Amino acid sequence: MPEFDKIVIFGVGLIGGSFALALKKAGVVGEIVGFGRSIATLTEAEKLGIIDRIGIHPGQECADADLVLLATPVGQMPAIMERIAPYLGAQTLVTDGGSTKSDVVAAACAAFAEKVGRFIPAHPIAGAENSGAAAARAELYAGKKVVITPLPENTRLDIARVRSAWEWCGAEIHELPPEKHDRVFAAVSHLPHLLSFALVHGLAVREDAELFFSYAASGFRDFTRIAASHPEMWRDICLSNRAALMTELDRYRAQLDEIRTALSTANGERLEAIFASARAARKDWGKQ
Amino acid sequence: MPEFDKIVIFGVGLIGGSFALALKKAGVVGEIVGFGRSIATLTEAEKLGIIDRIGIHPGQECADADLVLLATPVGQMPAIMERIAPYLGAQTLVTDGGSTKSDVVAAACAAFAEKVGRFIPAHPIAGAENSGAAAARAELYAGKKVVITPLPENTRLDIARVRSAWEWCGAEIHELPPEKHDRVFAAVSHLPHLLSFALVHGLAVREDAELFFSYAASGFRDFTRIAASHPEMWRDICLSNRAALMTELDRYRAQLDEIRTALSTANGERLEAIFASARAARKDWGKQ
Repeated sequence: MPEFDKIVIFGVGLIGGSFALALKKAGVVGEIVGFGRSIATLTEAEKLGIIDRIGIHPGQECADADLVLLATPVGQMPAIMERIAPYLGAQTLVTDGGSTKSDVVAAACAAFAEKVGRFIPAHPIAGAENSGAAAARAELYAGKKVVITPLPENTRLDIARVRSAWEWCGAEIHELPPEKHDRVFAAVSHLPHLLSFALVHGLAVREDAELFFSYAASGFRDFTRIAASHPEMWRDICLSNRAALMTELDRYRAQLDEIRTALSTANGERLEAIFASARAARKDWGKQ
Repeated sequence: MPEFDKIVIFGVGLIGGSFALALKKAGVVGEIVGFGRSIATLTEAEKLGIIDRIGIHPGQECADADLVLLATPVGQMPAIMERIAPYLGAQTLVTDGGSTKSDVVAAACAAFAEKVGRFIPAHPIAGAENSGAAAARAELYAGKKVVITPLPENTRLDIARVRSAWEWCGAEIHELPPEKHDRVFAAVSHLPHLLSFALVHGLAVREDAELFFSYAASGFRDFTRIAASHPEMWRDICLSNRAALMTELDRYRAQLDEIRTALSTANGERLEAIFASARAARKDWGKQ
């Protein structure tokens, strides 16, 4: 008997699709039903064997599901939560794959109200610049971190059940409070994306953009790989986590101001100290 | 008969060492003599077969050399130029591997004076976060761009000779005026390095740095790869190209200000437009 008889997934792209493929490969799920905005993506996901069938009525499908995964851009989650909230069955747990947590938790509290304990928020740390059902693969989460940000209303048993689903995907599970999660990811993920988008956009709008791009090399390639990330997804992440992100952006701008001063006063010692501190930290981190 | 009977290299690390190995592999050089600040590096370079011997008197060695390559951090180049200027033989050409050009050209004009036509500035676009003789390899320049920034005093014949040396390394040769070179590389190379150093340093100095680093993932890894670059080399590049770099930094800060405004007003449309512009440009560039 499978551990999960029925799983419903909203958004069958990279995140939702890979979750489905991993659980199917592990043989722990009976049936997977998919929902999404685009019938083309859903049909593709069905053909690729990611989902068993395309759902029609979200509420009905969730009523007898063991687990519901929200794997859409975070901006779409509140509407989906409101839509399914009245129908959640007695055993149905809901989790998500959103990159921000405070905002998602707030939406869950509003939508699920007294049932909010059924919602166990999660964030799989497995981005890729590719998106869509075709990019999904069973191994995406193998060895990757998934951060669960439990609510006071969650029972340990329900948390364990959601942990178990992500563990079947091969992930390493961590727990953080939602606010702490958001502060950390604003700094190590959301801000770098913003900075990379800003650099490439700034070059793209120049009159002589082609000249500039023609001399960009391997350092540029790595620095800007994340600038090819999904615009809508990142718009939602930035809006969803904007308080923490603005704090990090302001901190970073102050850092740039300091570097600007060091440049304008030709303070080589200060520049070298900053670069050496960065290099040492980056090399240490790279060893992990 | 080899195309270059004798080559003298100042700085036998990644850039100088790879140049030496490539020309040796191509069989176009008689003898390679190395100079450097560290006797340990020079000895290692000799053992690795990068250089044939360690030089003693820079002036004497340059007098009968066909080609001299300055492959030290750019900050050290003026002193070396002054040291060797009086000794340059009638056939000796000098080139360099510096990442900035206006400053190097100014130093060359000052040091070489009426002999400045013998100096053909070059910039091989082949960085790597590793440095030192052990990182050198004959293939480093294969398929990479080398930008030559000729001076009005250079003859086409002498430029052709330096082009030829880099072509033997497998590089694709381009020519740009020095100032244009510096503007372009400030934008596509020097600024990204600065931004990456700034991000990692900003994290490293936090009290809870370890927590932050522990959740950094693949996007962070790519964005910060260049933050492991050589601090002294990058200090010199930043100082050497600081006018162009400050212009680019200010332009970038204005871009961040615009993004800050979009965040603070929750202007998702503007954020998405910036991200989409960046993504499209990055994907186009990636296809090249």
